[in-house]
Amino acid sequence: MIVDIPKTNNPRIVVIGGGFAGIQLTKMLKNEDVQIVMLDKNNFHTFIPLLYQVATAGLEPDSIAFPLRKIFKGQTNFLFRMAEVFNIKPEIKCVETSIGDITYDYLVIATGSKSNFYGLKDFQANAIPMKSLVEALNLRSFILQKFEKALLTNDVKEREHLMSVVVVGGGPTGVEIAGALAELKNHILANDYPELDTRKMQIHLIELLPRLMASMSNESSEKSQLFLKQLGVNIWLDTGVKSYDGLNVCLTSGKIIQAYTVIWSAGVMGATIPGVNGNTLLKGDRIKVDSFSKVAGYENIFAIGDVAGMISDKFPDGHPMLAPVAVQQGEHLAKNILNLIHKKELQPFVYKNPGAMATVGRNRAVVDLQYFKFQGMFAWFIWVFVHLMKLVSFRNRLVVFVNWVWNYFSYDRGIRLIIKPLGK
Amino acid sequence: MIVDIPKTNNPRIVVIGGGFAGIQLTKMLKNEDVQIVMLDKNNFHTFIPLLYQVATAGLEPDSIAFPLRKIFKGQTNFLFRMAEVFNIKPEIKCVETSIGDITYDYLVIATGSKSNFYGLKDFQANAIPMKSLVEALNLRSFILQKFEKALLTNDVKEREHLMSVVVVGGGPTGVEIAGALAELKNHILANDYPELDTRKMQIHLIELLPRLMASMSNESSEKSQLFLKQLGVNIWLDTGVKSYDGLNVCLTSGKIIQAYTVIWSAGVMGATIPGVNGNTLLKGDRIKVDSFSKVAGYENIFAIGDVAGMISDKFPDGHPMLAPVAVQQGEHLAKNILNLIHKKELQPFVYKNPGAMATVGRNRAVVDLQYFKFQGMFAWFIWVFVHLMKLVSFRNRLVVFVNWVWNYFSYDRGIRLIIKPLGK
Repeated sequence: MIVDIPKTNNPRIVVIGGGFAGIQLTKMLKNEDVQIVMLDKNNFHTFIPLLYQVATAGLEPDSIAFPLRKIFKGQTNFLFRMAEVFNIKPEIKCVETSIGDITYDYLVIATGSKSNFYGLKDFQANAIPMKSLVEALNLRSFILQKFEKALLTNDVKEREHLMSVVVVGGGPTGVEIAGALAELKNHILANDYPELDTRKMQIHLIELLPRLMASMSNESSEKSQLFLKQLGVNIWLDTGVKSYDGLNVCLTSGKIIQAYTVIWSAGVMGATIPGVNGNTLLKGDRIKVDSFSKVAGYENIFAIGDVAGMISDKFPDGHPMLAPVAVQQGEHLAKNILNLIHKKELQPFVYKNPGAMATVGRNRAVVDLQYFKFQGMFAWFIWVFVHLMKLVSFRNRLVVFVNWVWNYFSYDRGIRLIIKPLGK
Repeated sequence: MIVDIPKTNNPRIVVIGGGFAGIQLTKMLKNEDVQIVMLDKNNFHTFIPLLYQVATAGLEPDSIAFPLRKIFKGQTNFLFRMAEVFNIKPEIKCVETSIGDITYDYLVIATGSKSNFYGLKDFQANAIPMKSLVEALNLRSFILQKFEKALLTNDVKEREHLMSVVVVGGGPTGVEIAGALAELKNHILANDYPELDTRKMQIHLIELLPRLMASMSNESSEKSQLFLKQLGVNIWLDTGVKSYDGLNVCLTSGKIIQAYTVIWSAGVMGATIPGVNGNTLLKGDRIKVDSFSKVAGYENIFAIGDVAGMISDKFPDGHPMLAPVAVQQGEHLAKNILNLIHKKELQPFVYKNPGAMATVGRNRAVVDLQYFKFQGMFAWFIWVFVHLMKLVSFRNRLVVFVNWVWNYFSYDRGIRLIIKPLGK
């Protein structure tokens, strides 16, 4: 069944995914003679870089999400449909979705990434990923429920296991969540649970490589390791994980760490959709695209952002899976699609690296710019400022700012509610 | 299995429910030689009077909820356990809960109320109640999902039914939700869904009695009816409901209204717990108590708030099920329990009516004080002020204030996310 979507005389661009890449592309085409149909299974954009703050009770979910219809309010060439895309049928220029089939002239796959468990079924079944708003909310409830349970046992070891958390993967996400958990432990949980000896809560961070945040500079790696140690996080470098039965995390070193909460931040893979030529998948399930973001083998199908594997001399494994890449590819593809329509020459994509940053805790962050690296309190202020500015609306900025100022001065976080879905 | 809770030399008061009544009682006993064990199935207090704003995307759930542990931070005679209570066994002074059995010296039942469907099974199955945070969130998602669905049909009638909402019950809750829905329709949905003719969205309010908000003054009834009409709400007085099959709402007048969304605000009943003498239940499942809040037949079991049916000359059907009654009964019972412990004479409860108020929309509210009634913009400011002041913490007040100021001047509401529980 074809979904009835008003037809215009302009070519229809179907954009799958309302993340950074899809949003930027759509914005750039605001005044052009095209029809944009955006599909997303949620009716909101999620500001993924701050998900870990929702998971650790620092921010409310609504603060880092923004309704997609609202972002493009007044953009007359834009339509949104809440739908999940199951399959692409390039031969009839059509996508199969949860609401029916939708035809396209140009297709942009901007589906982002999902957790990669590298075949470790134990972790897929028992570890908590953190890639969506609902997962972040569930993680928050999960940790707090374990604390409620810890109150009910007299077994000292069991208590410790109920309180402890293992974070697998020491990239920026793992570092940020471990730091935020340590602050939750020190400032909040100790107050909320005076009956528990929260000092027994162990936070472990496990990283396969010899240093944390291998994508950033050595200085940043070292400083974040130091910051985490100051906060009381146990760091295991050069260490992988083998198995997890819900309590025992077996490490490649032979050591076993016991915890009822394991967070998975060890890696992501492209969130691909069946239907495009399987040969075009690169390592990590990214769709192989040329320097114009065009999917190999098709003239009117493109991929941008995390799901796109664009290989170049500078990036032999594809571009990093980061928000700035997604934004820049979205912007660039918008221009190239116009070039296509107007039969002009396509321009190759060149990534301008704006630098990278991560926060470890209050007054503790690391920033890598091209010619300049710094860490500590000033870096933290820069981090706060940049993230506030990148949030989608003034309203979100205002609410997040109020929350952060409040949390900063009160050493408190307001939002430690256990909200369970109905019937669970 | 008895739950292991640290025993002290002081008598243990088990309080079931962290609503207005339970919180006030506990606060009043802060420095006394008692041990208070509060049980609630949620780890937070819900500010029920503002639930309808969460349901209509005006406020975030976290803004009107507050962690119970945090409220009593530093109160050393207070313990909290997250648990649902299934049964009371007065003969062995014990309550059966989801985490095990808990013994008491004094028991305070402060479980509040739940929706009363008066045996109308159709509505119990298909109408949406609004008594908890999760229900309010679900209602918000439900309405927005129906709008997404309305985009997918070309059947004009079906579209209208998908957009329309019937509110059953014209008490304060029904009036407030109908007004908030009308504003959502006029200011938000019309912008978000330019493809839909949102003027076709019908909002119906059905009331069995000859006037709205029968518990308030005639002036307030008339003014709120006028306000709702100005906002475009269809009001059906002297009208009951007979059946609902998910689309057709059959009224006692014979008329049929069609809508896929029906909100139930027609009445509440006590949220009782089995185990206390069944003879003590009054109309609406309220537990019969004497003027000392003591449950008939027991010397150490009390009920306060909505669940308590305290009959007096002035209130032959029991006190109104309102927050001020709950707060005052909580405060009063705290004193009487101390009187009991110190073998002093108990004092009967006398309700001091602080007045009533309800808001219908921006700049539109009604206020009944003892000697003074007023409606309109000034009433609305009073309503805003009183509700901000009643919120539990300064942080909640601040965030709600920021949201309200934002919503007021922008005619916008930020929070129209459809957040579905995982796996649904």
